[in-house]
This record gives sequence, C-alpha cells and structure tokens, in this order.
Amino acid sequence: MGEMVRIVVVHDEKLLRSALVQLLRSDATLEVSPQCADAREPEGEALPADACVVDGECLTGPDDGRAALLRDRYGDRLVVLATAKRPGVLRRAFDGGALGLVDKNAPAERLITAVHTVAKGERFLDETLTVALLKGAQMPLTTRELGVLALASQGAPIAEIAARLHLSRGTVRNYLATAVRKVGARNRVDAIRIVQSAGWT
Amino acid sequence: MGEMVRIVVVHDEKLLRSALVQLLRSDATLEVSPQCADAREPEGEALPADACVVDGECLTGPDDGRAALLRDRYGDRLVVLATAKRPGVLRRAFDGGALGLVDKNAPAERLITAVHTVAKGERFLDETLTVALLKGAQMPLTTRELGVLALASQGAPIAEIAARLHLSRGTVRNYLATAVRKVGARNRVDAIRIVQSAGWT
Repeated sequence: MGEMVRIVVVHDEKLLRSALVQLLRSDATLEVSPQCADAREPEGEALPADACVVDGECLTGPDDGRAALLRDRYGDRLVVLATAKRPGVLRRAFDGGALGLVDKNAPAERLITAVHTVAKGERFLDETLTVALLKGAQMPLTTRELGVLALASQGAPIAEIAARLHLSRGTVRNYLATAVRKVGARNRVDAIRIVQSAGWT
Repeated sequence: MGEMVRIVVVHDEKLLRSALVQLLRSDATLEVSPQCADAREPEGEALPADACVVDGECLTGPDDGRAALLRDRYGDRLVVLATAKRPGVLRRAFDGGALGLVDKNAPAERLITAVHTVAKGERFLDETLTVALLKGAQMPLTTRELGVLALASQGAPIAEIAARLHLSRGTVRNYLATAVRKVGARNRVDAIRIVQSAGWT
C-alpha cells in the first residue's frame, strides 16, 4: 500500500476544474482537495499538497503574479497542462521550473502518471511536447520587441507606446518592424497574431 | 428508476474531454460514450445519443462545418459549454438552436442538470450567461464588415482582402473604418482584439 498523494488543482474554469478533480479521483491513491488553490486569490490559504495540477493558460498573461504565487507555494511540484500549439506557454512553464508538463491531448492515465512522478520530485515531460518546447526556446524577439508588440496588440497607437516605454516614436516603429521581420510576418497585425497564437505574450 | 440517458462529449483537448466524461459518469443514470464524436472527423460514425455536450470553442472559427455536422447529428440536443466573456460564442450556439448553454464556471451539478433537461428536449440556459447572450445579440458589425476584419486579422493586406472578396480597395478601407467605429475601437488592431476576445470571429 502506497502513501496517499495530496493534489490541488488550479483551472480558471470551475466546471473544467471539477472535471479534472473527478478524473484524478479515479486513482484511489490520490487525495484531491475539493478547494481551489486559486492563484487569483492570494489571500486564500495555501493548501498543503505534494503536487499542484495547473492549466498552463493560468500561468500566462500580464498577471504574472499568479505563476509566482503558485511557485512560492508548490515550488517545482507543478504539473502544467499545455499544448504543442502554444510553445510560449510551454517555455514559460519549463523556465519557471515546473517538473511536470502534460499534453492536453494525452489520455487520462498520462496525467495520473505525471502527478505521481512529480509528487516524488521527478521530472515528467510528455514526449509530444518536446518539439514544441524546443521551438518555444527559439523565441526570436527580445523582451523589448515583445513588450512593444504586446502594447500594440492592445490597440495602443505608436505615440502612446512611445510615451509608456519612454522611447521615441521612431524607435517604437523600428522595434515593430524588427518584430515583423523576425517572426516572418507580413505586417504588424500578422506579427501580433503569430506571437499571440504561440502563447508568447 | 429512470431510463438511462446516453451522452456524447466533444472537446478539442482529449484530457479535458476525459475529465468531462468522468464528471458526467458520477451520475449513474448517464451513459457516457467513451468514444469521441469528433466533429473534425466527419467520416466518423455518428454515435447514438440523447444529448451531446460540446465546448463552445469547438463551434467557432472558420471551420464552421463542425457546428453544422453536430447539429445534423444531434439536432437541438446540444449542451454547449461557454463563458460570459465570449458573447459571440454564446450567440452562435443560441442562434444555431442549441437547447443547453452552461457556464464554464458553474458547479458540476449544473452540467448534469443541463444534460438531463436537454435530453428531455427542454431548454437549459444558465442565468449567468443571459446578460452576455443579450450583449452578443448586439453584434454591431454586418457580415461583410466582420468578413473583412477577419481577413485583416489573419494578416492579409488591403489589396489581398479586396481581391479575395471582389471589392475595391477603397471599399475594404471603408468597411474597416466602419468596423473600428462601430465596436468603439481606437484603430484596426484594437478592433480585431475586441472582436476576437468577444468570440465574434
């Protein structure tokens, strides 16, 4: 008889969170907390756990504090759900030190194996994600270029981007032009589309 | 003793599909097919079912054939999972005649109630989605304006949009300007962002 492994689950959509909890409970050696260790409620009590299953999309976006909070609480014992279509999300999870990366298209058993592996402090990396992870490593934009593009994607005009980042307009235009070229886009809109769909912003 | 209710589940991410299947199976009167009635495989056999649970995101995008296929197979017995943040997705599901609309943030019991309700041929509309649905009803763009904006969002330059839609460049520019104004955007990029995040494209 093995010891019980304690798990918390973080997902932005409660219904899908419940579904994942139910799935994990199909393994009788997993003790899944009914409470949500919601990273958006930093006041919430940290739940004791051997591993934390989290949707990779919860670790992206401008609200980076959530990822930091989860790392604070659970260290490297994170099992991140991700897809090969979003190398940026994968890369961020990997760089953040998460021990587990599970393909959202994997069969349910894979998640359960991953949880047990990570709870023991070992790495679990889904094979199907390896190539995408390597692609994510090739993010061609500098932090500055990405920052300029991110503001542009929110609809900010050149003058506003320049003011917010304390740059000249010409420099902003240069960054945007470089970003377009580097990601192989046809124009700014196309560059924004490419960067967003890869999960780089 | 009630009769068994047969359910199929469609979700683009297999792991989350498995999780939803597991959740539905917690109700012993539901018979949930282990097979995926994947709308992307029109050759696949239609599974007999009293209701089909589908992620609303599977019904969006340029590949509209999937939504049509599911409607062909399951008629109005669709339980669509959606969120108030995406009124366009809600609107499309509603207009497509789906009887059930469940908030992705609802507790698990709500989905089970929805499935039983829809399987009887009755409407189930989550209260939390009503306001968003009404907002979605106010989609201010014409089909033409939306079509032009959708091509622009893929990075197509004006000349290409004009050629593909058999319009003059000036007309394309006019459509884009109208779209920007109607959705209250600051510029084209902003209009694309607003329309995409609402799930209108």
